[in-house]
Amino acid sequence: MNIRPATEADRDAIWNIFHEVVATGDTYALDPNISREDALAYWFTPGTYTYVAEEVPVGDRVAVPRKPTVSPTVVTARQMLGTYILRPNQSGGGSHVANAGFMVSASARGQGIGRAMAEHCLSEARRLGFRAMQFNYVISTNTAAIHLWEDLGFEIIGTLPSAFRHPDKGYVDVHVMYRSLLD
Amino acid sequence: MNIRPATEADRDAIWNIFHEVVATGDTYALDPNISREDALAYWFTPGTYTYVAEEVPVGDRVAVPRKPTVSPTVVTARQMLGTYILRPNQSGGGSHVANAGFMVSASARGQGIGRAMAEHCLSEARRLGFRAMQFNYVISTNTAAIHLWEDLGFEIIGTLPSAFRHPDKGYVDVHVMYRSLLD
Repeated sequence: MNIRPATEADRDAIWNIFHEVVATGDTYALDPNISREDALAYWFTPGTYTYVAEEVPVGDRVAVPRKPTVSPTVVTARQMLGTYILRPNQSGGGSHVANAGFMVSASARGQGIGRAMAEHCLSEARRLGFRAMQFNYVISTNTAAIHLWEDLGFEIIGTLPSAFRHPDKGYVDVHVMYRSLLD
Repeated sequence: MNIRPATEADRDAIWNIFHEVVATGDTYALDPNISREDALAYWFTPGTYTYVAEEVPVGDRVAVPRKPTVSPTVVTARQMLGTYILRPNQSGGGSHVANAGFMVSASARGQGIGRAMAEHCLSEARRLGFRAMQFNYVISTNTAAIHLWEDLGFEIIGTLPSAFRHPDKGYVDVHVMYRSLLD
């Protein structure tokens, strides 16, 4: 797997994952019918760092010189596994706290893609000088995410009662999670 | 005092208050040097309800018929005391929780303008069908605001450690506050 900054050429693949994730309506507080245009505007908002995780086929080592058989076509055909965004959670006096959002392709679940992107994200956040990271909206029924964030050092600092209307479970709680990046 | 939806004609007066409030840099996580254009785009974002509180001079009762001396000039000369916004805090499954932001003109502080706008806001939120209201970012040094919100039924549901860089006090905590609108 390779995790790298997203480019314009990734927009179609990102939209495929984004659409797949929000259409279920149970992990993000986003309109499940959001348009491609609005989705990509959100994921590529100015001031946001956007990354993708892609599968690297065996033998496809683009960094190796003198490998003329690797054409751009082959590179863009790599399978997109997931995408994430990293950005300041607030402006002005709040801009030292990062926020992030993660999406994994349904066909790539259970392979540690989310964890790999999260670890990459924490590393990038430190490199960019952020002092902490905050998740504003972790839906309490999304236990896989909560366990992953706790495993990576995040704590639930507050719970918003009935703040999310789950498509199957009705009104459920939402957690605010936070971790320092100083140490 | 009269509280009403803002119109295009209020933009100059709103910008004066907005600029005054964010320039101090100690109550909002916004760039103190934000441009007029960006500030008004933020305060009038699509999907946001924007209101103003204005002083109503004695005798200036525009709703009374046959009062030809009240010209549009007189009406726009009413002093703007404050402004607030009301909006969904999230989209999709989170859109039943409201968010709000309040700004009071420096020259009108200590007169209950903030409380009057907050009570108006809670009433409007109920009328619009919101089930709860959340403040994402109440800076812990802004004790006047915290006391007002607690007095109006909000609770601190979590505290973000050192999430705001105060211009005088350094890194200070930030509270997330919440109240149900169902009762």
